[in-house]
Amino acid sequence: MKALLGSGGIRTEGRRELYRKLMAENFTDCERVVFIPFASNDYNGYTSSMREFAGNTEYEIIGLHEFEDPLMGLEVADGIYVGGGNTWLLTKQLHLQKLIQPIREAVIKRKIPYAGVSAGANVASPSMQTTNDMAITMVPSFESLGIIPFQINPHYHPGGIWYREKENGDFHQHFGESRARRVSEFHELNDTPVIGLYEGAFLKCKDDEFELIGNKAAIMRKGEQILTYDPGVMFNGKLTTA
Amino acid sequence: MKALLGSGGIRTEGRRELYRKLMAENFTDCERVVFIPFASNDYNGYTSSMREFAGNTEYEIIGLHEFEDPLMGLEVADGIYVGGGNTWLLTKQLHLQKLIQPIREAVIKRKIPYAGVSAGANVASPSMQTTNDMAITMVPSFESLGIIPFQINPHYHPGGIWYREKENGDFHQHFGESRARRVSEFHELNDTPVIGLYEGAFLKCKDDEFELIGNKAAIMRKGEQILTYDPGVMFNGKLTTA
Repeated sequence: MKALLGSGGIRTEGRRELYRKLMAENFTDCERVVFIPFASNDYNGYTSSMREFAGNTEYEIIGLHEFEDPLMGLEVADGIYVGGGNTWLLTKQLHLQKLIQPIREAVIKRKIPYAGVSAGANVASPSMQTTNDMAITMVPSFESLGIIPFQINPHYHPGGIWYREKENGDFHQHFGESRARRVSEFHELNDTPVIGLYEGAFLKCKDDEFELIGNKAAIMRKGEQILTYDPGVMFNGKLTTA
Repeated sequence: MKALLGSGGIRTEGRRELYRKLMAENFTDCERVVFIPFASNDYNGYTSSMREFAGNTEYEIIGLHEFEDPLMGLEVADGIYVGGGNTWLLTKQLHLQKLIQPIREAVIKRKIPYAGVSAGANVASPSMQTTNDMAITMVPSFESLGIIPFQINPHYHPGGIWYREKENGDFHQHFGESRARRVSEFHELNDTPVIGLYEGAFLKCKDDEFELIGNKAAIMRKGEQILTYDPGVMFNGKLTTA
């Protein structure tokens, strides 16, 4: 298994450069990367803008929706790239189009490299439940691709939240649940460990090795203290370090 | 219909005083207020701490879980109070215990006053979908109490998010979706108008009149600009002002 899973928040020039470098490495020797735009409602627009954002790539990016039969699209793909957006929309379509099992097999058995950013990284987990997105539509099930054995919480941030007024730049403290608190609620009912990827962070995945690149990550386990790691660390599938 | 719906974030002394005053008004002449603790996993602990937080009340607070038959609990209640916590947990129990319709009827037909803060305000809406909470468990349906004709997004805040490092107090910008962006995603697939209640804000509801108290609110309609209002304004059921 080979995958690149990004938190999102790729909004600075440095982060964009890192993204392009890691994507090129992930999809080395690929000619045809199939892009899955289902986290958006505008498949054509999203696929075009992703082509632009990716820059000059060695591989061609084709939207999965451009194939009459999406299963055929997966057959001819030598790379799979799932874009960010709303995780509920994305997961619903993956189920409705019966793509969960075929994508899992392509990545795990046929070793097709996978990339996913934000919602696309979230759904690489066993379940979509650690999304931050609003439930804009019902899903048939929370099950997602399960190409990694732990949960990703993308766009993770530590501590309290503040918002800044546009008019005068003043900061106001917000008392809503912190991300860590939300994940601890998840752990009241679920056991899978969660990695909170700070924005700009990536996990470079190779079988049972997961290298943290670009920014920090917080490891959250049921009933345990949060552990925060700097980039460069290597995790295994249990999110412990070697 | 008489209801008090609060955003949450009641963490300052001023906000706590306002909360107690408004709760006393909402439950005037009530002897027995039934508290619904299902947004938590610890019904006894939550009910006790809510009694403490409410302070000296004219009415008795009884947990709905203390009744052998919850429907009997609703029968003898002359006030219903739904506490905050995780909206998914809460909505699941409301469905499993078949309480949606009985609570709706108690509030709409029998005019039993209702109070809800955070998740408890959220579920007064037709759907639970405008929650900010993590989907820690599946719900049978998104349908919620529907005692008001619009959606509440509790703990609303405008603009971008920042987080503050505990160690040095530095602010870092976060690029995840703003709340307004999340609600606009909701409006890609749903039509119901949404009121984003700033923390510390309450809606004092009387039939088709909804008075904003305590803090601002943002009115978000499908495809329209956000309108922000100061406390004191009176909305109708379509969230337009008279």
